[in-house]
Amino acid sequence: MSSRLKVDTTGITTPWAIPIPLNILPTKTERMLQILSNILATRSFQNTIIAVILINAAILGLMTSHTLAPSTIETLEWLDHLCLVVFCVELLMKLLVYRTGFFSDGWNIFDFVVVGIALVPSTGALSVLRAMRVLRLMRLVSSMPSMRRVISGMFRSMPGVTSVAGVLLVIFYVSAIMAIGFFRELDPEKFGDLGSTFFTLFQLMTTEGWPTIARDIMKTMPYAWVFFVPFIILTTFTTLNLVVGIIVNGMEEAKEESAREEMVAQGYHISEESNEVRIAMIRNDVKNISEDLEKLESALTRLMQIRTELRSATTPSVES
Amino acid sequence: MSSRLKVDTTGITTPWAIPIPLNILPTKTERMLQILSNILATRSFQNTIIAVILINAAILGLMTSHTLAPSTIETLEWLDHLCLVVFCVELLMKLLVYRTGFFSDGWNIFDFVVVGIALVPSTGALSVLRAMRVLRLMRLVSSMPSMRRVISGMFRSMPGVTSVAGVLLVIFYVSAIMAIGFFRELDPEKFGDLGSTFFTLFQLMTTEGWPTIARDIMKTMPYAWVFFVPFIILTTFTTLNLVVGIIVNGMEEAKEESAREEMVAQGYHISEESNEVRIAMIRNDVKNISEDLEKLESALTRLMQIRTELRSATTPSVES
Amino acid sequence: MSSRLKVDTTGITTPWAIPIPLNILPTKTERMLQILSNILATRSFQNTIIAVILINAAILGLMTSHTLAPSTIETLEWLDHLCLVVFCVELLMKLLVYRTGFFSDGWNIFDFVVVGIALVPSTGALSVLRAMRVLRLMRLVSSMPSMRRVISGMFRSMPGVTSVAGVLLVIFYVSAIMAIGFFRELDPEKFGDLGSTFFTLFQLMTTEGWPTIARDIMKTMPYAWVFFVPFIILTTFTTLNLVVGIIVNGMEEAKEESAREEMVAQGYHISEESNEVRIAMIRNDVKNISEDLEKLESALTRLMQIRTELRSATTPSVES
Amino acid sequence: MSSRLKVDTTGITTPWAIPIPLNILPTKTERMLQILSNILATRSFQNTIIAVILINAAILGLMTSHTLAPSTIETLEWLDHLCLVVFCVELLMKLLVYRTGFFSDGWNIFDFVVVGIALVPSTGALSVLRAMRVLRLMRLVSSMPSMRRVISGMFRSMPGVTSVAGVLLVIFYVSAIMAIGFFRELDPEKFGDLGSTFFTLFQLMTTEGWPTIARDIMKTMPYAWVFFVPFIILTTFTTLNLVVGIIVNGMEEAKEESAREEMVAQGYHISEESNEVRIAMIRNDVKNISEDLEKLESALTRLMQIRTELRSATTPSVES
Repeated sequence: MSSRLKVDTTGITTPWAIPIPLNILPTKTERMLQILSNILATRSFQNTIIAVILINAAILGLMTSHTLAPSTIETLEWLDHLCLVVFCVELLMKLLVYRTGFFSDGWNIFDFVVVGIALVPSTGALSVLRAMRVLRLMRLVSSMPSMRRVISGMFRSMPGVTSVAGVLLVIFYVSAIMAIGFFRELDPEKFGDLGSTFFTLFQLMTTEGWPTIARDIMKTMPYAWVFFVPFIILTTFTTLNLVVGIIVNGMEEAKEESAREEMVAQGYHISEESNEVRIAMIRNDVKNISEDLEKLESALTRLMQIRTELRSATTPSVES
Repeated sequence: MSSRLKVDTTGITTPWAIPIPLNILPTKTERMLQILSNILATRSFQNTIIAVILINAAILGLMTSHTLAPSTIETLEWLDHLCLVVFCVELLMKLLVYRTGFFSDGWNIFDFVVVGIALVPSTGALSVLRAMRVLRLMRLVSSMPSMRRVISGMFRSMPGVTSVAGVLLVIFYVSAIMAIGFFRELDPEKFGDLGSTFFTLFQLMTTEGWPTIARDIMKTMPYAWVFFVPFIILTTFTTLNLVVGIIVNGMEEAKEESAREEMVAQGYHISEESNEVRIAMIRNDVKNISEDLEKLESALTRLMQIRTELRSATTPSVES
Repeated sequence: MSSRLKVDTTGITTPWAIPIPLNILPTKTERMLQILSNILATRSFQNTIIAVILINAAILGLMTSHTLAPSTIETLEWLDHLCLVVFCVELLMKLLVYRTGFFSDGWNIFDFVVVGIALVPSTGALSVLRAMRVLRLMRLVSSMPSMRRVISGMFRSMPGVTSVAGVLLVIFYVSAIMAIGFFRELDPEKFGDLGSTFFTLFQLMTTEGWPTIARDIMKTMPYAWVFFVPFIILTTFTTLNLVVGIIVNGMEEAKEESAREEMVAQGYHISEESNEVRIAMIRNDVKNISEDLEKLESALTRLMQIRTELRSATTPSVES
Repeated sequence: MSSRLKVDTTGITTPWAIPIPLNILPTKTERMLQILSNILATRSFQNTIIAVILINAAILGLMTSHTLAPSTIETLEWLDHLCLVVFCVELLMKLLVYRTGFFSDGWNIFDFVVVGIALVPSTGALSVLRAMRVLRLMRLVSSMPSMRRVISGMFRSMPGVTSVAGVLLVIFYVSAIMAIGFFRELDPEKFGDLGSTFFTLFQLMTTEGWPTIARDIMKTMPYAWVFFVPFIILTTFTTLNLVVGIIVNGMEEAKEESAREEMVAQGYHISEESNEVRIAMIRNDVKNISEDLEKLESALTRLMQIRTELRSATTPSVES
């Protein structure tokens, strides 16, 4: 049995699940695990989970309403707990079947965390977790393959832009320390310490309300624009560079992938090159073909002389 | 008769209108319908409708003026009703000629709706419809083929980006419920219920006035930036991804379409592949051609030996 | 003499100027015009004009200073008039040499207008023209070929996007009339008449300060967001579509043009096709070449039989 | 010895450092310089410098804290001076080894300046330099090759867009002088002199708070929108053109470079053409190949007649 069997049909690869016929499994436990594995693989199970997520979304949405009778709130809470139980059961099934292989898939870890948030008792300092339980609705993204591809696409193009992100971070850090040095006394609320300065610089990067801050400071320091204007230009440009890089890389990877699938479907072998390399290699090969054809033509011209020689050779022998 | 006859010359395809010669139609009704169909197909009819739309636009524009004498307002209203009558007559003609086929074209449904808005009595709760009667001016877009192509282009590239839109919607919904949970008490006007939270989050997504809202809330909850900053980064990035996706897909489809038209005009057959697939297939074929040429060369080299054999064969026979 | 002689070396084509040797010109006037034409064509003349523009720029910049002695202002004004005289002389020279051909080049008409602004007496209602005399500094763009290419590039890509601009205009006009109908009583300053509504809608399109306007109106009309949110989404998207279209088309045209120049320099003939058409035609031709090569191979295989026949034919004649 | 030896393995080319074996160097000084050169080339030295930069970054970050005991501040200052000493030693080493070649690399000049800022006594008018000493943390960008490539990529694509930047500057300058002429009396703070007008126009270009400024001025000058609206449209568009040009050119250069590296690794020679030129040349060559193949086919057809002639020639000789 191949170790990379696709055992579910929604496109979610579960490489660790091996559909083994039940009768060859020795123990009850293994048969139980195989049954669970089969259930997890079926499409209807996936769709059930998606349905439960949507129901949970509606419940959490309704619970934000002001005008709810206490009994309604109670019912909704109970239904919410029911959904949570379903998610826990699903996670348990996956943990049982896949064991340590469970944590090899990032999406599983994501599911584990967002469901686990609701299991932590949300009291005291962790009361904020109660509002964060809605994060489990992000499982809609992790459950639907098309949405997973969007997120995976973004993550796949990020390695190519880590350098740009690094440059942006260095610019930010250096500007923050400079801004604190320059403006701390003038505006302690905005430039008081590293944290608030980062927040203010992020605000400047979104160019939101920056003239107010700048003109304020320029009343006392008329040359402060030497800091603000280049900072805005530099960060806006680098951020655009970063964002455009991620988006364009992701789109090109998607085009390459669909091209690859098309070629495989048509039986062609397609190599892992980029378009530029292919076009340059085609150019080279076509030039060589042109030269080869010239050689062929001269060879054929010499062969043409056979006719002449043959004619002159055969005519005398006919005559004799 | 082909069922996909282009019966008007402005590029608006009316696949259900068949120009049948009048004399072969049995009944008066069918002759009437054919006359109407012919009228609808002529270019001057299309241009008349566009002219009426533009006149209606001018009328509705003039009617916004403060300083109008009541008699002028009356005249303008009367002219506006006249335009509406023209549109209704056009719609009736189309309904008569195309019958149920009328509703198969989205643009017809659009025309039907925007003209129908003016026919609904605009009183009471529906008084807003009176101001919305101007929507029929959007018929300028549905009447001119170039503008229709713009809108169709955008709609055609939307299926490719539904996943990105879906991810954006999930992020929005989850953030809304979290924001209500966090900020409801601090700012009931902005985060009071789901509707106003969606509006506030949309405002944050346009990064408009977000520092004011954020700094306000951060006076009480100093860590609120952990919500606002990632939300702004995430939604701005996903929205850019969505928008760039739609725009670039639309532009590529337009280029492919014009390339296809050029090829057809030149008599070439062009397949429905993408550029990447074509370049990869060219690469494959060019490699095979290189190999084939090598085989040809070796074959020709062996053929060259004919000359030698022939020379040696013919020389003795000449000598003998 | 070719009618499209490039008579100046800065890349500014003057197709109507024909360098005729002086001695073959009959009259004094024609000799004078030829001298003027030669002067206009020299590179040093172009550079002199650019220098005068830059000096005029410095003068007008200095004249904005508060702390100028009246004598300095007088001197600067006198120098400004001197520059204006230089520009008028240049325009007169061009008018004399090129006569009616002068107005066939858009850049000449631009130069004519911006210099003419300063000649109109700037008094009374036209006093605003005094501040607009600085527009002649835009001649720096019309005098330097690289900058002319930038502007020409943008203008060349505009025809492709007139449909998008048209859709945007229709959306604007329709939304303006709707907004007046909805919001006139609530905010007469912003939505009072067509002009101020257009200004407010343009402000909304730049998403600048829109929540303030929207929340204000939503105090009285809680459903006003049904107008504002779709309007912002629609116009921002269409504008991005328009802008990206112009920029990308312009960049592609620039790439095609530089590719064409490279090919011409290398002696290749390059046709006016787009890349997509070229790649599809290469694909077709390469497929045909593959098929032709197969036919060649089978023909050569049949030719190989000559060897066999020849061998069998020559061996008996040697033996006999 | 090659004069372009890569002597360090982090990708930072030091073309002037020649690894000469020590024993063939005559004097002590040259041996000393060679030892220094070898040290500078080792990867561990580069990593040490990066580590010192990061430590310096942490120190400067900690020093922004409010709640530091004076002893802590003293220790941090001492550590900061230690880092500065390390940087000075490194610069001295480079100066000694590379002598005048040091200033041929822009990154070295950058390092020299940002470290030198800290050496200038920061008193009086130059007290701002104390806060600017953090600029030496930008050395992280100059020390890591991936980040250097990002900056180099941006700089390499700038020459292609100088014309667009020039057009933007001319628009800015002309609009500034016009705005001063129009609005100086109405709003002296924003449009008082050239400097503040440039700042206000930059603010308008970022479309931040522009309606406030515009509506203010339009209270007195109702037609001021004729200046503001076209200015915003024009500058926003030209800036987008500029930014997109730099980003896209940089990305294409990066793709070309990685394609070139791939080809070199595979042993292909790749010419310095653009994709458009390559595709057009492939098109030409493929067309010629098609024509050559046709000639080959007709040549082979004529050769086929050899068979016939041979048959008719050899049959009689067998018969006789």
